[in-house]
Amino acid sequence: MGEQLSPDEKLHLITRNLQEVLGEEKIKQVLAERELKVYWGTATTGKPHVAYFVPMSKIADFLKAGCEVTILFADLHAFLDNMKAPWELLALRVQYYEQVIKAMLESIGVPLDKLKFIKGTEYQLSREYTLDVYRLSSMVTEHDAKKAGAEVVKQVDHPLLSGLLYPGLQALDEEYLKVDAQFGGVDQRKIFTLAEKYLPTLGYAKRSHLMNPMVPGLTGSKMSSSEEESKIDLLDRKEDVKKKLKKAFCEPGNIENNGVLSFVKHVLFPLAGEFSIKRDPKFGGDKIYTNFEEVEKEFSEELIHPGDLKASVEVALNKLLDPIRKKFESPELRKLTNLAYPDPSKNMAKWLFGIQTIFPTVVSGLVAYVSQEALQDRLVLLLCNLKPQKMRGVESQAMLLCASIEGDPRRVEPLDPPEGSAPGDRVYVEGYETGKPDDKLNPKKKVWEKLQVDLKVSADCVAQWQDKHLMTKLGNITCKTLKGGNIS
Amino acid sequence: MGEQLSPDEKLHLITRNLQEVLGEEKIKQVLAERELKVYWGTATTGKPHVAYFVPMSKIADFLKAGCEVTILFADLHAFLDNMKAPWELLALRVQYYEQVIKAMLESIGVPLDKLKFIKGTEYQLSREYTLDVYRLSSMVTEHDAKKAGAEVVKQVDHPLLSGLLYPGLQALDEEYLKVDAQFGGVDQRKIFTLAEKYLPTLGYAKRSHLMNPMVPGLTGSKMSSSEEESKIDLLDRKEDVKKKLKKAFCEPGNIENNGVLSFVKHVLFPLAGEFSIKRDPKFGGDKIYTNFEEVEKEFSEELIHPGDLKASVEVALNKLLDPIRKKFESPELRKLTNLAYPDPSKNMAKWLFGIQTIFPTVVSGLVAYVSQEALQDRLVLLLCNLKPQKMRGVESQAMLLCASIEGDPRRVEPLDPPEGSAPGDRVYVEGYETGKPDDKLNPKKKVWEKLQVDLKVSADCVAQWQDKHLMTKLGNITCKTLKGGNIS
Repeated sequence: MGEQLSPDEKLHLITRNLQEVLGEEKIKQVLAERELKVYWGTATTGKPHVAYFVPMSKIADFLKAGCEVTILFADLHAFLDNMKAPWELLALRVQYYEQVIKAMLESIGVPLDKLKFIKGTEYQLSREYTLDVYRLSSMVTEHDAKKAGAEVVKQVDHPLLSGLLYPGLQALDEEYLKVDAQFGGVDQRKIFTLAEKYLPTLGYAKRSHLMNPMVPGLTGSKMSSSEEESKIDLLDRKEDVKKKLKKAFCEPGNIENNGVLSFVKHVLFPLAGEFSIKRDPKFGGDKIYTNFEEVEKEFSEELIHPGDLKASVEVALNKLLDPIRKKFESPELRKLTNLAYPDPSKNMAKWLFGIQTIFPTVVSGLVAYVSQEALQDRLVLLLCNLKPQKMRGVESQAMLLCASIEGDPRRVEPLDPPEGSAPGDRVYVEGYETGKPDDKLNPKKKVWEKLQVDLKVSADCVAQWQDKHLMTKLGNITCKTLKGGNIS
Repeated sequence: MGEQLSPDEKLHLITRNLQEVLGEEKIKQVLAERELKVYWGTATTGKPHVAYFVPMSKIADFLKAGCEVTILFADLHAFLDNMKAPWELLALRVQYYEQVIKAMLESIGVPLDKLKFIKGTEYQLSREYTLDVYRLSSMVTEHDAKKAGAEVVKQVDHPLLSGLLYPGLQALDEEYLKVDAQFGGVDQRKIFTLAEKYLPTLGYAKRSHLMNPMVPGLTGSKMSSSEEESKIDLLDRKEDVKKKLKKAFCEPGNIENNGVLSFVKHVLFPLAGEFSIKRDPKFGGDKIYTNFEEVEKEFSEELIHPGDLKASVEVALNKLLDPIRKKFESPELRKLTNLAYPDPSKNMAKWLFGIQTIFPTVVSGLVAYVSQEALQDRLVLLLCNLKPQKMRGVESQAMLLCASIEGDPRRVEPLDPPEGSAPGDRVYVEGYETGKPDDKLNPKKKVWEKLQVDLKVSADCVAQWQDKHLMTKLGNITCKTLKGGNIS
């Protein structure tokens, strides 16, 4: 669609609303000759929320400008960033990101066939790439690597080596994805300048960098997926959207740090080119705005009331979310969501095969068994929420059992069945070898919480329930190192 | 050959003269069932010298005990350790190590077909291994990685990321080489304990560790290849051996820090089971000793004189070195030696094809041209010591031209010809495009030194001679980053 535009018009679309552009001259040179190649990478960590519409809107801009856009699902980065995505969940998170980002793009009318999607581990584990990681690691000091990642990589007391590798990989991605420019938030600036400095040292071209401002969250102050409570999830129901928007900071006349206004500016206007305020005729009636500055001006003059702004944004946002919610109603995507972001108290995953045994007393609704599927060839323990009437179906719910120790970073290890275990092996509490599931009881809401209180890891790394070993016929259930850890 | 020995006898041979063994129980268990699998790794950095006979003698012990021994030529480690072997020389250094270590083993009578040889990059760049590097990097803190490498990795003011990766790779090697134990100097202890701690966390078995003491060098105080002057190179001529041994610290009666005595203990006795002192009948005449303790005792009582000890060691050492020197007389191995350890002042490599042009004034004996061979698909500049009568032969000598800046670590980059260059392209000094080699002059010994004084890298990374650009028809000769650097 960029074909009718002049290079200057393309440049305008590519750079509008950005905070900073490094290497703009190079971009102009490319646009004079051919379409620009851009990539945006997203580490597949926490669940994407509505703030992701901000980069998505820029991606729509790039496409309008005729750019060739690549979206990188950076699974290896997600792992390297202090295991924001634990190894065991990496593949599932990538799948979730891919589905949800595609749903967002479809929702804003971006044709997916104009985009390239790629997963980091598809090329970042190649011999060639790995050699470059080592070459780069012999040029970048510990100090520079740390500084480059300071605003992006989670900062912890005892930093892991992995966090130092993160910036270098992001630099190499520019070369391996064969792009002219990388797009990201301005929080990526130090990683971008590291890339500009070191790619030429490896004999590769220096790339341009397109940086979005840090846009205040629609309902909070920061665009980060860590303050989950206040964030609007892409799958939130309409009621939740209304409730969360109600709490959003949006003072009459105050245009500073106003996430609702920012959303209008960075998402709704770029996508639609206009924005409608719906309001009671006695407060001025409906009005359609065709540029953001007018909205901002009228809001600052209190001609637009926060309540009306929020209500209008709510309508527009729900329009964007509807197709995403609809897509995620499918059983496959609901299952994926639960597996990728397991939540013991509400989102027990729908998964079951080979139910064998049970924690004998408290929790007749729950069974534990050895499973193979979730962990990529590594046997693990799944705890199932037993609904006997659907034992062979997909209706029952399961979660991965892990040992954990709180701290910074929180350490998590899956529980291991004894050597030689096979999928479906019985797990039981020592002394209850012959226990059988009481299949008459339905799972109770609080069953897991009750069970968990009594579960812990012993000083010799054995999983225990009320101080009795959890085991299978082959021996104890253990974890590798988290002595005295919790189990969840 | 270990078949006739009992497990206890094998254990004795495996552990004799070691300073420390971690996991001896596990070794006993293995020996009760089968032969032990051991590996020794050597980072292919500086030239191996006579101190390498110490680990070689232990390897002979392992083989006598029936062990399956793997020798790892750790090329990637050589690079990661602050580029002790620069990327460009890595492949050549590995070849040199392989040839010289094999020659040493042959010289001490070890049958090579009993050994496995492997190069690090043969498996350390695989997808599987690389994943494990990242997994490990998400468990090991920066602090622990630094501590583990403290005695092995060169310590510098601005440490590079690569040095932090070094210990983790060495740990993974134990798993990927499928061994029961790793052998090394006691300076490796912290890397060994890191391996013992983290391999189980990755789901791999903990290995045993066999540690040699830090044996004082034959002619110096430390067993390191960095104090080149005093070390006896494996290819040193007999005169040099005599001269260097003469300077070795070896006080009458003093058995502390006595490198000559240590060599007798750790090399000559384990290999031969006996040691002959040759001396004038008036000082007691020749004597054959069958255990080291007797030699040590008589030396401490001044019954053996340092001069006689040195002379006898000299005889034994020359016997070990003779076959190595002989092997390295071949043109191929002499060429390899010069390429792997280029020394502008004496060891110009024997290499020439496509001589084109010349530094016009000072150095009519020298030509520079674009070459492809030394650098694994990367075009570089070779400076040749021109002997016109053998232009197409292998007699002429060439060296790789690099920019460098002194410091800690010293930074080195090969000079790059302009883009699009082909092997054989002319290199000339700006303004001397039509200069022709004066093929009547023979290279003078001091020609390179004279030339080098006038060579440097400009502030915009162009190589210059007397402030005039070095170039080919396609443009300037440059380096990537070393502004103001020297050229050598």
